Amino acid sequence: MKKRLVIVGLGLIGGSLAKALRGFEDYEIIGVDVSQPTLRYAMEQDIVDRAEADPVRALAEGDLVFLCLHPQGIVEFMTEHRNHFRPGSMVTDVCGVKGAILKGAGVLPDTVSFVGGHPMAGTEFSGIQHALANMFHGAHYILTPNNQSSPEHLALMERLARYIGCADVVQTTAEQHDAIIAYTSQMMHVIAVSVCDDPSLFDYQGFEGDSFRGCTRVAALDVPLWTQLFSMNAEALGRALEQLEENIRQYRQAIQSGDLEGLSEKLARSSARKRKMNRMEASSGAVGRDRWEGSRDGATTSES
Amino acid sequence: MKKRLVIVGLGLIGGSLAKALRGFEDYEIIGVDVSQPTLRYAMEQDIVDRAEADPVRALAEGDLVFLCLHPQGIVEFMTEHRNHFRPGSMVTDVCGVKGAILKGAGVLPDTVSFVGGHPMAGTEFSGIQHALANMFHGAHYILTPNNQSSPEHLALMERLARYIGCADVVQTTAEQHDAIIAYTSQMMHVIAVSVCDDPSLFDYQGFEGDSFRGCTRVAALDVPLWTQLFSMNAEALGRALEQLEENIRQYRQAIQSGDLEGLSEKLARSSARKRKMNRMEASSGAVGRDRWEGSRDGATTSES
Repeated sequence: MKKRLVIVGLGLIGGSLAKALRGFEDYEIIGVDVSQPTLRYAMEQDIVDRAEADPVRALAEGDLVFLCLHPQGIVEFMTEHRNHFRPGSMVTDVCGVKGAILKGAGVLPDTVSFVGGHPMAGTEFSGIQHALANMFHGAHYILTPNNQSSPEHLALMERLARYIGCADVVQTTAEQHDAIIAYTSQMMHVIAVSVCDDPSLFDYQGFEGDSFRGCTRVAALDVPLWTQLFSMNAEALGRALEQLEENIRQYRQAIQSGDLEGLSEKLARSSARKRKMNRMEASSGAVGRDRWEGSRDGATTSES
Repeated sequence: MKKRLVIVGLGLIGGSLAKALRGFEDYEIIGVDVSQPTLRYAMEQDIVDRAEADPVRALAEGDLVFLCLHPQGIVEFMTEHRNHFRPGSMVTDVCGVKGAILKGAGVLPDTVSFVGGHPMAGTEFSGIQHALANMFHGAHYILTPNNQSSPEHLALMERLARYIGCADVVQTTAEQHDAIIAYTSQMMHVIAVSVCDDPSLFDYQGFEGDSFRGCTRVAALDVPLWTQLFSMNAEALGRALEQLEENIRQYRQAIQSGDLEGLSEKLARSSARKRKMNRMEASSGAVGRDRWEGSRDGATTSES
């Protein structure tokens, strides 16, 4: 008998997972969404085997459940439906923060195995019509198990990540994941919006160059999603930003005080670090590196 | 009789200017450099008509003099050689800050016309061996005249900028130029090095994505050059950085205090500004936009 894989939330990531998971082992794919047009589209395009508007009915059948809602939606869904997951089922999510999700998963009964997940891919679009079967090709898939996670579940997630084309699967703690994300991704988004808050933004239109575009590209972000991602990772992100503010302040003080020697030393140290990083990246082969945020063809990403 | 165009400093920009200015009106190109190998290379590669190690001899002949040294070197050269410029000659420079250069040009006698210039191009390389005849194609050329600048000199600079392929020539004050540069370019470099100063840089190697790479790309900068550029624009850059620190601090406080409504409002405002900017850029045709920092083929730039 076929097993059932339930995808709750057929947006960009849920839809892409459905497409990418076609033919994975012996799973039948059931898509759940609150939007009837989305469910209809998923059936018409043969993205799912079955469309289901009622999560309770879908969960009763689900062997493996993917929660692909917005961050807060995932937490609320687990709370509301904690008694609707089939005993013995395995539950995972795709959220870009993990500590808050693992905390939320604490409501699940012992009969359910939960593994937090973050397939690091996305595009600047949203919605199932932009879903891509190759969305996860070359991406990192980070897993953050908790004490309810079963070894079978982790093994399944590894096979699944390979099947959808991920370059690697990394197990880590939620804290480590959230610190990485705070620094490498969320901080870049705070920088981008902070630069665009400058009153001069439009005055100098046309004089911005590659460094300006590279730095501000991600400022055109999905506001509700990033409001949730930032606030659900407040501790790690707050720490990273405090460090950044201090680093910028040190450069500013060296510049304003005319401390050329100090400024030169700081620039030498930092540029040497960046060159070392470039060398490490070049020599590592960088498989999957380009997929971390899921940018494709240089498009603006809004990784979550 | 041919006129003489003297290029002082045959580095990346001086060498590229020499190449790009070949055949410009009736000028003979004389290259001046302290390095004998550089002068030899310039002659062997037919980059200049004549090579001259002694600036005094070259200046005595120069109708138009381009100062293509490092920022502080330009100021020092004008002071040292203020009485060596031929009466009636026109002098310009290529420095990425303009207030300090115009102040330095105050030492020049009234018999010399000075126009500050910033052809906005460059690559991550330095040295005449990386000079490119098409370095300035599509670039902005900013001119900052002072009260010694003659109308003929400005008209000549306009023709010259068109000849080397610039997309446009913009006249502005030194203050305006330095404020633009502080915000659109120098601040991006301070952000890049500040991010690379984070102790986590190497811990999370391999998990950085497009936004991280886009933001930190320019951190591998030319230290002596940028030490001078930053410190010679301390006032405007200091102001821009204070604004940035305040903008980041506001996001951090909204995030740390759990002020979701305030955070959401701020993100909505900034992302709308960025989208508006993207639309303006898309509809403007963006001639020359890609040349502001002189990046070619996505190479790391070190615009000066």
